[in-house]
Amino acid sequence: MSNAPNLQQNRYKADLREVRFLLFEQFKLDQILGQGPFEAWGPDEVQMVVDEAYKFSCEVLGPLNAIGDRVGCRLEDGKVITPPGFKEAWKKLYEAGWMAVSADTEYGGQGGPFTLHIAIQEFMSGANSAFIMYPGLAFGAAEVIQLFGTDAQKERYLHSMYGGTSGGTMCLTEPHAGSDVGSSTSTAKKLPDGKYAIRGTKIFISGGDHDCADNVIHLVLARVEGAPAGTKGLSLFIVPKIRINEDGSLGEANDVNVGAIEHKMGINGSATCLLNFGENDGCIGELVGTVENQGMPQMFRMMNGARISVGLQGVAVAASAYLNALEYARDRKQGPSITNWKDATAPRVAIIEHPDVRRMLIDMKSRVEGIRALIIKLTRHFDLATVLKGKDDEQALYHQGQVDLLVPLVKAYGSDQGFRVCETAIQTFGGAGYIKDYPVEQHCRDAKVFSIYEGTNHIQAMDLVGRKLGQRGGANLQTFLGEVGAFVKANEKDPILGKAVKELGEAQEAVAGSAMRLLGWFQMGKMPMVPLAANRFLEMMSETAVAWLLLDGARIAIDAQAKLPADDSAAPERAFYEGKKQAALYYALNVLPHVRLNAEILGREDASALDIPLDAFATV
Amino acid sequence: MSNAPNLQQNRYKADLREVRFLLFEQFKLDQILGQGPFEAWGPDEVQMVVDEAYKFSCEVLGPLNAIGDRVGCRLEDGKVITPPGFKEAWKKLYEAGWMAVSADTEYGGQGGPFTLHIAIQEFMSGANSAFIMYPGLAFGAAEVIQLFGTDAQKERYLHSMYGGTSGGTMCLTEPHAGSDVGSSTSTAKKLPDGKYAIRGTKIFISGGDHDCADNVIHLVLARVEGAPAGTKGLSLFIVPKIRINEDGSLGEANDVNVGAIEHKMGINGSATCLLNFGENDGCIGELVGTVENQGMPQMFRMMNGARISVGLQGVAVAASAYLNALEYARDRKQGPSITNWKDATAPRVAIIEHPDVRRMLIDMKSRVEGIRALIIKLTRHFDLATVLKGKDDEQALYHQGQVDLLVPLVKAYGSDQGFRVCETAIQTFGGAGYIKDYPVEQHCRDAKVFSIYEGTNHIQAMDLVGRKLGQRGGANLQTFLGEVGAFVKANEKDPILGKAVKELGEAQEAVAGSAMRLLGWFQMGKMPMVPLAANRFLEMMSETAVAWLLLDGARIAIDAQAKLPADDSAAPERAFYEGKKQAALYYALNVLPHVRLNAEILGREDASALDIPLDAFATV
Repeated sequence: MSNAPNLQQNRYKADLREVRFLLFEQFKLDQILGQGPFEAWGPDEVQMVVDEAYKFSCEVLGPLNAIGDRVGCRLEDGKVITPPGFKEAWKKLYEAGWMAVSADTEYGGQGGPFTLHIAIQEFMSGANSAFIMYPGLAFGAAEVIQLFGTDAQKERYLHSMYGGTSGGTMCLTEPHAGSDVGSSTSTAKKLPDGKYAIRGTKIFISGGDHDCADNVIHLVLARVEGAPAGTKGLSLFIVPKIRINEDGSLGEANDVNVGAIEHKMGINGSATCLLNFGENDGCIGELVGTVENQGMPQMFRMMNGARISVGLQGVAVAASAYLNALEYARDRKQGPSITNWKDATAPRVAIIEHPDVRRMLIDMKSRVEGIRALIIKLTRHFDLATVLKGKDDEQALYHQGQVDLLVPLVKAYGSDQGFRVCETAIQTFGGAGYIKDYPVEQHCRDAKVFSIYEGTNHIQAMDLVGRKLGQRGGANLQTFLGEVGAFVKANEKDPILGKAVKELGEAQEAVAGSAMRLLGWFQMGKMPMVPLAANRFLEMMSETAVAWLLLDGARIAIDAQAKLPADDSAAPERAFYEGKKQAALYYALNVLPHVRLNAEILGREDASALDIPLDAFATV
Repeated sequence: MSNAPNLQQNRYKADLREVRFLLFEQFKLDQILGQGPFEAWGPDEVQMVVDEAYKFSCEVLGPLNAIGDRVGCRLEDGKVITPPGFKEAWKKLYEAGWMAVSADTEYGGQGGPFTLHIAIQEFMSGANSAFIMYPGLAFGAAEVIQLFGTDAQKERYLHSMYGGTSGGTMCLTEPHAGSDVGSSTSTAKKLPDGKYAIRGTKIFISGGDHDCADNVIHLVLARVEGAPAGTKGLSLFIVPKIRINEDGSLGEANDVNVGAIEHKMGINGSATCLLNFGENDGCIGELVGTVENQGMPQMFRMMNGARISVGLQGVAVAASAYLNALEYARDRKQGPSITNWKDATAPRVAIIEHPDVRRMLIDMKSRVEGIRALIIKLTRHFDLATVLKGKDDEQALYHQGQVDLLVPLVKAYGSDQGFRVCETAIQTFGGAGYIKDYPVEQHCRDAKVFSIYEGTNHIQAMDLVGRKLGQRGGANLQTFLGEVGAFVKANEKDPILGKAVKELGEAQEAVAGSAMRLLGWFQMGKMPMVPLAANRFLEMMSETAVAWLLLDGARIAIDAQAKLPADDSAAPERAFYEGKKQAALYYALNVLPHVRLNAEILGREDASALDIPLDAFATV
């Protein structure tokens, strides 16, 4: 329409009451605050960080989201120029310390819980998904160096990477090595001084270059001469864009060149680069740590964090799309109420009063809140693993096991559903959702990549069924299923939730049975059935986990509601808890039943997708 | 990647063997050729038109698809400038007569079957969805004038509208009257000469102005002074952009002005206009026909065709996305075969050999071919209604009833699944699918609008459950269900298809039961449950229809396969039929079972979406 809103208006918003519910009422962050590494942190500090980070996201990042999309990045004289305002936002982000909330205090971080880091990263991802990738990748790369680097490497790189004077990247993908990382042909040749000469071309490198920081520290997978084929022979190298002198100052340029940047469907503010390493034989890198051929386990460690961040991007963008659609549905008047549908003179009502619009809204709400709960559950396990390490190693292992198990669910289900919610948000807007005056079409375009990068969602599904289900002798899965089962047993007779909890019980059994079937296929020589069914199984397990956590939240909400005073002063809180309850019922009764159907379909072992001959898909 | 393909390369392709299968093997177009209005048409003429129209789509329209998206339309001095090449393509389109294949011979048309028109429109929509909207809307508007206009109006407008010297539009939507058309505030005041002065603002008008033709004939819904409120008081007016003199020559400009054009997620080559009628009190229109307040029935008649075209756009774009993904999957090598998955030195294979990629391909194939079959079934009913009218009116009524029943399915399921298939195509490409070097991201963006315009998909669902189910005393639905039931009975013991046919039987029963339940809600005062469940029911009925037609096609394919010679000469045909069979099995065993689950969910009457208070969706 003609009255197009200001391109630099912030359209981002979050429901802070919901965040508080998750952190303190459902996942009881206070239980891990004030002890061990989080000794300096109490609930008040956490709440203050949440509030301020949200404010920052709305004031600094949100206003750059549309402009970043429309202007995009450009390559000028071999350098990436980010959209207007990104450079200033980067500076403010690091000045405020938002990327270092959970980073080690030794390197300038604030040592807070990972849960808090993720809670506030959601705001930043939702306000500007493209922008946050630059600092997010720098953070992830720094974590790898912190975990696996030598003391000298940590000292040399971490201050600048956590502090915002250096960016960072993960350089895995090559033109002919995407999902199949092991086919990488980049090489590393050891030099007399212990460093390595790096050669190779990497593609799809997010933040591969930018003008927000003085330097970019690349982590590059390459194969040392004579190393084994496949993933086992890959090593990880630190390759700065600008070499760093012994005194820490910037030296001369390394031989790292941006060959091109991609033009994409979305996240246009994020530069996706083709990088050439060593095309002039002058690219010098150093091995992460001291042992060669450790690239994959090192990268995997980094990928855990990156994959959580991608699932989080999904929910963050979806949450913004949902809340924007909700606002529109409250404002936009169209048609009479369904109770007056035959009366042409009946007053027009806000579209939120129309049943199908409410269906779309509660559908979005339940998916967003359920997946967010899954992410916070995961980060709670992460923090507890940190707290308990060395104190109660068995418990720490249990928590780490749940992290490992849930990462593929968070990444794949979070990203798939993020896109789905954006699609529903567009539909809620109607024609207005398709035009650039509103943010949801951009959210939808941005969200599509989440199911692809950091390992496609099929890679996640194979990680789940091929590695995670059997991990620790299957203990991680058994524990997960046992916890769902215990919740079912405790709540199956509840007068409000009972019917929904019964669905959860059936879903839990369906997941357990399908997991056994999948593991059986490995042994029975039916290996091709595993990838054929893997995505379906991941979805089943995700829906079961999400329904469980929504119903657990509803249980808490119902109990809290009962304790509220009966007068009007408690009306907003009553409504909030009522919303939690209804969304859980909606999801459990409308989405969750698909789990048992999918178990039935999986059990049939239909192999039409394998039986169809290669030349039978089409005659062209 | 750096080797970006030429922006003007045609990326469109269609499987002509599949089109031939539908037209002649499954839907036996030859049975209606050579008789009645189609006397001049035989199978050879049809095949020639199909072949030539495909060639035209690839040579003329396909090369303009990406450029139309990237350059888009612009508004210059109040006039819309279409993307480079559109004007020339329009000229070639009309010179070749592609828009007049099924138009009346009296007005320059070729009088062919509607089925043929739709079959070739698929090529044009798939090759360039944005471009085809200009001639498509002109065609639809011309049809309305042909059906409802006076002889003088037909004579004055149809030659130019079928011949390409005039464009055409449908002007329904206003800023506060979208789905609620009856709230329209545009007015018409009768003038002494019998014409009308039109005033009002219309938005989201596709092809509202363009430079391809000399004139644009708008069909405008407006309310004559004193007419009733709501849809009953709306009349339809012919409002030319340039007035037409008595001798047919172009006169002076009418008072119709383009206020703005929208910036959209996709279909950027199609100008979406805000039009002001009569802002200078000089907009003159004439009533379609001679009776006021007939605007809605007239528009509805036009909308049937427009809605079929939108469902067709969905399948057309999806088919192109599928075939592009298929081509990529055959070319792109990545990773070893699943049978060698632990061997890092095993040869890399084309990704079509990976089970999950095959799953995505057969999923796309089955949806595309199934929905296309549904559309051709609908157009066959349309053509038979035309052939039998006046000869066997009862049979003609049966065929028209099936057209009415299937239109909402084609529009809504075709558009929803079109978008879904594009999403799957992107995933099949992986990272390459997200970048603009390949056509699938544009297809996905283009496709999103199909679920919104020409009546949102919820409007379609309400049309189905609120009007179509009860039409002719429920006879249309009963006939449909009876035909599915007869197929089930005839094939449930088939050794190859039996299991899938059994699923179809269960789906048919689930649809029948849910239809009864829906109709019951109208009577039991549970009216708000109807819109809540309408989309779910439409999907159930669509999946049942699509599975039926896929299995019917598989039945034909299996029989045809048995008659092929056993030697290599028949290998391509054998593969083609095998593909039909496997895709039908896939859809029936993996997608169709959702129908019975959805019936179960619908039967629960969960009303959480209605129970949730308005202020409980979020605290912001």
